[in-house]
Parts: sequence; C-alpha cells; structure tokens
Amino acid sequence: MNARAVTVSEEYLASLEHGADWREEIEEFCARKDIDSAWFNAMGAVQDAEIWFYDQDTQEYQSVTFDEPLEVAACVGNVALLDGEPFAHTHAVLSRPSGQTLAGHLNAGTVFAGELYLRAFEEPLEREHDDVTDLDLWL
Amino acid sequence: MNARAVTVSEEYLASLEHGADWREEIEEFCARKDIDSAWFNAMGAVQDAEIWFYDQDTQEYQSVTFDEPLEVAACVGNVALLDGEPFAHTHAVLSRPSGQTLAGHLNAGTVFAGELYLRAFEEPLEREHDDVTDLDLWL
Amino acid sequence: MNARAVTVSEEYLASLEHGADWREEIEEFCARKDIDSAWFNAMGAVQDAEIWFYDQDTQEYQSVTFDEPLEVAACVGNVALLDGEPFAHTHAVLSRPSGQTLAGHLNAGTVFAGELYLRAFEEPLEREHDDVTDLDLWL
Repeated sequence: MNARAVTVSEEYLASLEHGADWREEIEEFCARKDIDSAWFNAMGAVQDAEIWFYDQDTQEYQSVTFDEPLEVAACVGNVALLDGEPFAHTHAVLSRPSGQTLAGHLNAGTVFAGELYLRAFEEPLEREHDDVTDLDLWL
Repeated sequence: MNARAVTVSEEYLASLEHGADWREEIEEFCARKDIDSAWFNAMGAVQDAEIWFYDQDTQEYQSVTFDEPLEVAACVGNVALLDGEPFAHTHAVLSRPSGQTLAGHLNAGTVFAGELYLRAFEEPLEREHDDVTDLDLWL
Repeated sequence: MNARAVTVSEEYLASLEHGADWREEIEEFCARKDIDSAWFNAMGAVQDAEIWFYDQDTQEYQSVTFDEPLEVAACVGNVALLDGEPFAHTHAVLSRPSGQTLAGHLNAGTVFAGELYLRAFEEPLEREHDDVTDLDLWL
C-alpha cells in the first residue's frame, strides 16, 4: 500500500443544486476554491444516473443509464487533478422505491437534492496513467 | 452549490445499543451532547429496517419494511436541527445472506450491532422547507 | 449509545496494491504504522470478493464468494485491536456491469485498484467478546 499522510486545509458542508450535474457540482466547487485534493461523502437523490463499470479484461468503461428517480443511498469519492483540472472520482449506491439497489462509478446524474461533506487537503493529488490497470491513478 | 466551511467541535466513535432504534440512538446522543450539526458514517447489522423512498413527482415518501436480519453495509448521514431538535438524516445500504442489497433513506431499524463515527461541527445546521423539492433542506 | 470522544493522530490517503488482499492491505499498513484504531472509507474495484453475513440466530458467519470483477462502490470500516493485532472491520458495497449490487462484510477481495482515506486515532480500540451478539465488539 502506497500511503501519504495529509493535512486538511478546510472542510465543507454543501448542498448540491437541484437540476445540476452531481459530479460537475463538486468539480466546479473545487475549481472555484482551488482545491486540488479532497475526500468526500454525499447522499441525496438524483433524477437519473449514468453508471460506469470498468471492464478489467478489455480495460474499457461500460456505461449503463437509468432514466428514473433514484435515492443516493451512499456516495464516496475523492478529488485529484487530471490533466490539470480537478476531477471528482465518484462512486455511488442508488436505490429504487422497492429498495432495489444499483451501484458503481457515477459519471453523471441530475441532482434532485444532494448533501455533501468534503475534506480538502493541503497536499495536491495528481492522477497519472497506470500501465497495469490502464487507469489514471494517484500516488 | 451552496457550501459552508465548518469547524469540528468534537469527533466520536460509538457503539449503538443492541435492541434500540438505529436513528434514535444517534439523535438522542446528539440531543444529550448539544450537537446541532454533524456528519456520520456507520456500519453493523439490524434486526429489521424501514426504508423510505422520496417520490419526486408526488413529493411524498413511500415506505418499505423488511422484517428480517440485515447487514448495514454502509450508512451515511448528517445531523441538523429540524423544528428545534437534532434530526439524523440517515441513508443506509443493507444486505441479505446472499449478498443481495437493499438501500434508501433509513427511517427506522432495530440495532443488532452498530459502529458509528461522527464529526460534530461548531456551526449549527437547520433544516428549512424548500419549495422546489418540498423537502426540509439545510444551507 | 456508548460513545467516546477521539483525537486524530494522523490521516492518510493511500492506494491499495494491485493483486493484494483488500483487507490485509489495510491491516498491514496499520501494523507497520502502529495504528491501533482508525476509521476509513475506500472505493475502487476487486477481482473477486468473499462476503460474510452474520446469522443473528445461529450466531455464525455465512460466506458467499463472487469470483468475478466487481466495482467497490463504497467501503466503510474501522480498525481496532483483536487479540493484539490490528483488525480492519470492513464492509463493502460491490457492483456488476449491469449496476446490480452485492454487499456485506468483506472478508477478502483481490484488489484491482483501491483508493483509501483513513483517520488514525490517539485512543486505542480493542475488540472484546460480547455475550449478547457473540461478536467481538469495541467500547
């Protein structure tokens, strides 16, 4: 495990804007506040969602879109620089009225309501290409 | 995104009481400690669960009850004042022996065992009625 | 609720090693750094997973193994001493290409890629046998 001790610069509570994109909301906030690295948790609901699954064999993302209202039961993510811009790597667990659950890498989702807790760090994180997984990873 | 920098007043580790209600345990602790705002994570297991789903069209909650033992695979939530009392807005991801997963807004659940990490903030949060979603939101 | 105020000794961002075991990675890091108590969040993907469900009646763990690539949509856990060694109590929400979700107590899983945020505390946590649940609990 490759680990780095980090120091918090600031921590925030935020509400995501109704009708905006869930991930872009976080990235725009970080760009505006010059946040280059962060860890976050969130919860709420979306009006739709685009979930990605990384195919470990072909090393390509597969996409599934759900055009329906969903609860965001849990959202875990982090912010790092990707090509010089803050990228919010966002995973989410979503649910339907029956409690049935969908989850994965959240590429996009239209916010119905969202509550966010974000810790920004002093030390910048930068994503770089990793040959083994063909993903952009940090550290 | 509407964000506010916050300062931690205290952080806690806690074990929830066997047989108590998951959400009430958190709210009673916050009332006792005068905590008006917090973010938390938790995990454990419940003996049953009542999950709510917010219908974005009718703007009413729908309820589903699971009268069976479930793992709490992940629980994310926050505490804010609602009508002057600490309200723990609690989302949870639950699972069955097969790994099958259920998730949503956790209104109630009887604790089998629960482990909680909670960060209390200096700045109070207060839920107020939001006209767009007909929910009580903070910030 | 049995709660204890805690003080952070250090917080870390880490990437888990491709091919290693998800839980062992966290435990070995804590052993190396003399971390006796911590709370963590993580996300990423595994190549396989062994999920446990605690049967509340028989008080025995049941195990299910998934020998397939899965996203780690959310991972919540904590570290405490168990028989003198750091034990990472790890819950995870996993997902398939369709978004279908599996969750529970993550006993083992081969890391494809993993991103971790861990807060280590000054105060040690120690798991001890609890008669009511027949689990090893802390506090």
